[in-house]
Amino acid sequence: MTDQWANSQPDPASPGTVDLHLDLDLGGPGGIRASLTDALREAVRSGRLTPGTRLPPSRSLATDLGVARNTVADAYGELVAEGWLSARQGSGTRVAQRVTGQDGGRRGKRAAKAVRPPAHPAPFTPFHTSTSLYAGSPDLSAFPRAAWLTAARRAMAAAPNELFGYGDPRGCQQLREALADYLARARGVRTAPERLVVCSGFTQGLSLLSRVLRGDGVRTLAVESYGLHVHRDLAAASGLSTVPLTVDHYGADTAQLTTHRYIGAVLLTPAHQFPTGVPLHPDRRAAVVDWARTTGGLVLEDDYDGEFRYDRQPVGALQGLDPERVVYLGTASKSLAPALRLGWMALPERLVEQVVAVKHAGEQHPGVLDQLTLAEFISSGGYDRHLRAMRLRYRRRRDRLVAALAERVPSVQVSGIAAGLHAVLRLPAGTEQQVLRSADWLGLAVQGLDSFRHPAVPRPEAADGLVVGYGTPAEHAFTGALDTLCQVLESAL
Amino acid sequence: MTDQWANSQPDPASPGTVDLHLDLDLGGPGGIRASLTDALREAVRSGRLTPGTRLPPSRSLATDLGVARNTVADAYGELVAEGWLSARQGSGTRVAQRVTGQDGGRRGKRAAKAVRPPAHPAPFTPFHTSTSLYAGSPDLSAFPRAAWLTAARRAMAAAPNELFGYGDPRGCQQLREALADYLARARGVRTAPERLVVCSGFTQGLSLLSRVLRGDGVRTLAVESYGLHVHRDLAAASGLSTVPLTVDHYGADTAQLTTHRYIGAVLLTPAHQFPTGVPLHPDRRAAVVDWARTTGGLVLEDDYDGEFRYDRQPVGALQGLDPERVVYLGTASKSLAPALRLGWMALPERLVEQVVAVKHAGEQHPGVLDQLTLAEFISSGGYDRHLRAMRLRYRRRRDRLVAALAERVPSVQVSGIAAGLHAVLRLPAGTEQQVLRSADWLGLAVQGLDSFRHPAVPRPEAADGLVVGYGTPAEHAFTGALDTLCQVLESAL
Repeated sequence: MTDQWANSQPDPASPGTVDLHLDLDLGGPGGIRASLTDALREAVRSGRLTPGTRLPPSRSLATDLGVARNTVADAYGELVAEGWLSARQGSGTRVAQRVTGQDGGRRGKRAAKAVRPPAHPAPFTPFHTSTSLYAGSPDLSAFPRAAWLTAARRAMAAAPNELFGYGDPRGCQQLREALADYLARARGVRTAPERLVVCSGFTQGLSLLSRVLRGDGVRTLAVESYGLHVHRDLAAASGLSTVPLTVDHYGADTAQLTTHRYIGAVLLTPAHQFPTGVPLHPDRRAAVVDWARTTGGLVLEDDYDGEFRYDRQPVGALQGLDPERVVYLGTASKSLAPALRLGWMALPERLVEQVVAVKHAGEQHPGVLDQLTLAEFISSGGYDRHLRAMRLRYRRRRDRLVAALAERVPSVQVSGIAAGLHAVLRLPAGTEQQVLRSADWLGLAVQGLDSFRHPAVPRPEAADGLVVGYGTPAEHAFTGALDTLCQVLESAL
Repeated sequence: MTDQWANSQPDPASPGTVDLHLDLDLGGPGGIRASLTDALREAVRSGRLTPGTRLPPSRSLATDLGVARNTVADAYGELVAEGWLSARQGSGTRVAQRVTGQDGGRRGKRAAKAVRPPAHPAPFTPFHTSTSLYAGSPDLSAFPRAAWLTAARRAMAAAPNELFGYGDPRGCQQLREALADYLARARGVRTAPERLVVCSGFTQGLSLLSRVLRGDGVRTLAVESYGLHVHRDLAAASGLSTVPLTVDHYGADTAQLTTHRYIGAVLLTPAHQFPTGVPLHPDRRAAVVDWARTTGGLVLEDDYDGEFRYDRQPVGALQGLDPERVVYLGTASKSLAPALRLGWMALPERLVEQVVAVKHAGEQHPGVLDQLTLAEFISSGGYDRHLRAMRLRYRRRRDRLVAALAERVPSVQVSGIAAGLHAVLRLPAGTEQQVLRSADWLGLAVQGLDSFRHPAVPRPEAADGLVVGYGTPAEHAFTGALDTLCQVLESAL
C-alpha cells in the first residue's frame, strides 16, 4: 500500500521548511516508522532534499501523517544518528551539510548501480565458452553434485560445534588426516597430518612458500622454461626472480640447477610437465634431490594432475624420495573443481611453523565446511570413485583426439604421455601463429605452446605447438570441440 | 590375504642380492603388481633395503613369486621411474643411492608421523573451552546447520556448470547481488554488485586495502586507541604504521585526524566501537567524512556486528554518507560463523580495479559453493530469520548479564550500548589485574580491556575493565559461564 503523502502547505513561520513529497509504504515490513525513515533518507540521498533544508517540526509532520509524534521524532533521531540530518537546539532539524549533495547526490543510488564493471582479469573467462579447449580446467559439468551434497550432509551432522569457529590455520584436522592417508596411498607421499597445510588452491601454497623462501634470504626460484606465467608472477610478487630450466623430452634439465649457484628453490611438475606433457626422467628426479641435499635448496613439486595417468600406474610423487627437501603441492582444482579453492601442501618439518605463521598472519583460510566435506568425500571412497570415472572419461577423450588427428590431420602429432587433462599437438615448424589465427576465426579458444614460454628463453626452432585442454569441454560438447579443432588444423595447415 | 614371501636363498652368483621378506597383499585393490610395488617401496623406505643393494633378477623373483616376469619387471620399472631403484645396463637393478638411507631412512614413515605439531597461534584456541567469555565469536552451537544445507542443496541445483570454474575474483555475481540488496535494506549501504568484493572474512579485506593504500603512497593508518591487535598487525604487515585516535564515550576522537597531516586512512567501528561498545557520535560521523573529503583520505568502516542492536533500530552504515570516501566492510563471522571465512567490502568506484587486481594476483578467493549457499540463504530470507533468532538470544543474554551483575556485584557497571555480542564491564580503578588472576584461577577465559589498548597509548586512569563476550558460550553453557563470571568478580573485588 503506497501512500503519496504531501505536506503541501509550506509553513510561513519557518523559512526553508520544505514542501515534501514522500513515497511512503505504510504497509512495509518495518512498520510506519521504518517507512518514514526510508522515505526521508531516500529524499536526502536523491538530492530532493538539499543540504541545509529545514524539515517540518515533528509535531506538524505527525499531524499531517496521522501518526504519533514519537514515530516522527524517532525517524528524525535515527537519521540524525546516521548523519543524514542534523539537529541543533533552537534551529530545528535540517538536512546535514556533508551529505553528498548538489552534484553527486542527485544521481545517488542510480549512479552507483550504473558503475562500469572493472575489466575482468583474463584467466577465467575463456572457460565459459562452449568451444573452449583451454588447458587448466576439468570438465566442470562432471562435478559430483549429489555425492558432494551427501558428503556435506554427513560432515555437517558429524562436526562438533567448535569446528564452526576460526579454525586451525593448517586446515581442519579431519581433512589433513584424510589427505595424509590418501596421498600416501595414491601418490606415494610421505607425510603426516601435522605436516600438511590446506590452502586456497595451489596458488596460495606457492604464494606462501615464496614469501617464506624470500624471508629466508632466497632470491631466485628456478622454474621450467615452459609453464604458467601466473606462477612466475606470483613468485615475482613475493620478490623472487625466476630463472628457466630448459624443458626437453626428459622434462626440465636439472643439470642447469648446478650451473647457477644462486638458485635457492626449484618449481617442477615431475609427473606430467605442464604444458609439454613429459614426465621427469628418473635420473633427473634423482639429480634434483641430490641438488637439494647438496645445496640446501628446496624442491616444490606441483602435482596438479598426478592422479590422471592412462597407460600405467602413475609415477609416485618425487616428494617420497626426500620429504625434508621436497614440498608436495596438490589441488582439488583438476580432480574436482577450481571453484572449491582447495589445495594442500606436504611440508618438510622445518618449514611447517614458518608457513603456518605467514598463513595465519593473512588469515586467508578456505571455508571449513568445504574442508570437512572433502574429508568426508575422501574417507567415504567418493573421491576415488569420482577419480576413476573421470580417468575413464578423459582417457577416452584423449584416445578420440589421437584417433581424429591421425585420420584427419596426420601431419600433427600428439606429444607427451597418455596422462592428464591436456595434450600438446606438435605442429609443423612455423605454423603456430596461423593455426591460432584459424582457431580465432572459427571461434575455438585454444592456446599456442609459445604463450607458456618463459620470457627469458629464446623461442626454440621447431617448437610450434598447440596446447589442447581436452578435459575442459562438457561431455556433450566434446565431439563438437574436437571437430572444430580438426577444422582449425585442416584449414591452417 | 597377506602372503609372507621370502626369497630365502641368496644367489651366490650375485653378491649383494638381498634376502627379501616382503609383506604382500595379493588380494589388494591394485592387483599383484601394485602390491609388489608397494611392498618393495616400503622396504626401501623403511631402510630394510639399503642404498646400493642389488635386487633379484626379475626372472628369479617372478619364479619365486609364481607371477609373470612382466609383473616384476613392471614393478621394478615403476620404482626406477620414481627414483627408488636404479637400473644400469649390465649391473642389474639396485636400490638407488639418493633414497633417504642410513640415518633418516630407517625411521621413515614412522618418524614423519611422530612430528611434533607446531605451536598453535593464539587467537582460536580459547573459544574451545566451555567456560570461555572471550569476545569475538558468536555462539557456534547456533549455526543453522539444517537451513544452511537446504540452501546449499538449492544453490547446487541452480548453479550453472561454469560456476564450478575459477570464478570471478570479486566473488560470485549471485552473492554480490544478494548482498547489495541486503546491505542497502539492513544497513543503509549504498553500493552495487559491481562495487562489492567478497573476501575470506574481514581480515582479507583489510589486508587487501592495506596493500592498495600502501601502493598509493599511504604510510599511516589511523586506528582506534582500543581495538584488535591482529588488525594493527595486518596493516603493519603491508607496511602501514598505525596511529591511535583516543576512544572516549563518543567513540574515536576524529578531531585528532586533522592534527596529524600524514594520515591517509582511518579504520573505525562506527556502529559499536570494539571493544568499548559505544557508537560513534553523529558529529564525529560527519567529521570523519569531512576529513576524508578535505584530505582525500579513506575511511574503512568495520561493521562487524552492525546487525545486533537491541534497544532500537541499528544506526545505518557510515558508508551511506559518502560511498566514494568510505569502504564498508562486513562479515559472516559474527552473524553466522567464522568457519565460513566469508566477508565483503563495498568499495568506492575508483578502488574497485586496484583491489580486484591485488586480490586476483594472490587468487585467494573463498570457495564458490559457500558463496552460492550464502546468496541463496540471504535471498530466501533464511539469513534474516537466523539474525532475528540470534538477536533475541544475545539480547536475553545481555539482559541476564546486566541483571546478574546488579544483583551480585553492584560495584561493576556494564558500559556501552545494548548491542553486539560482547560488553565491557567497568571495574573499580586498579582492579583489572586481580580480576584476571581470579578468572584464571576459576578457569574462565576472559580478557581485560587493557589487552586491546594500542601500544602507543599510555594506560589511562580508571580504565579498568573486563571485555565479556556473552555471545561466545553455547546456550546450555551460558548460565554456568555467567555464574563463574560473577564468582570471579565477587572473589576479586
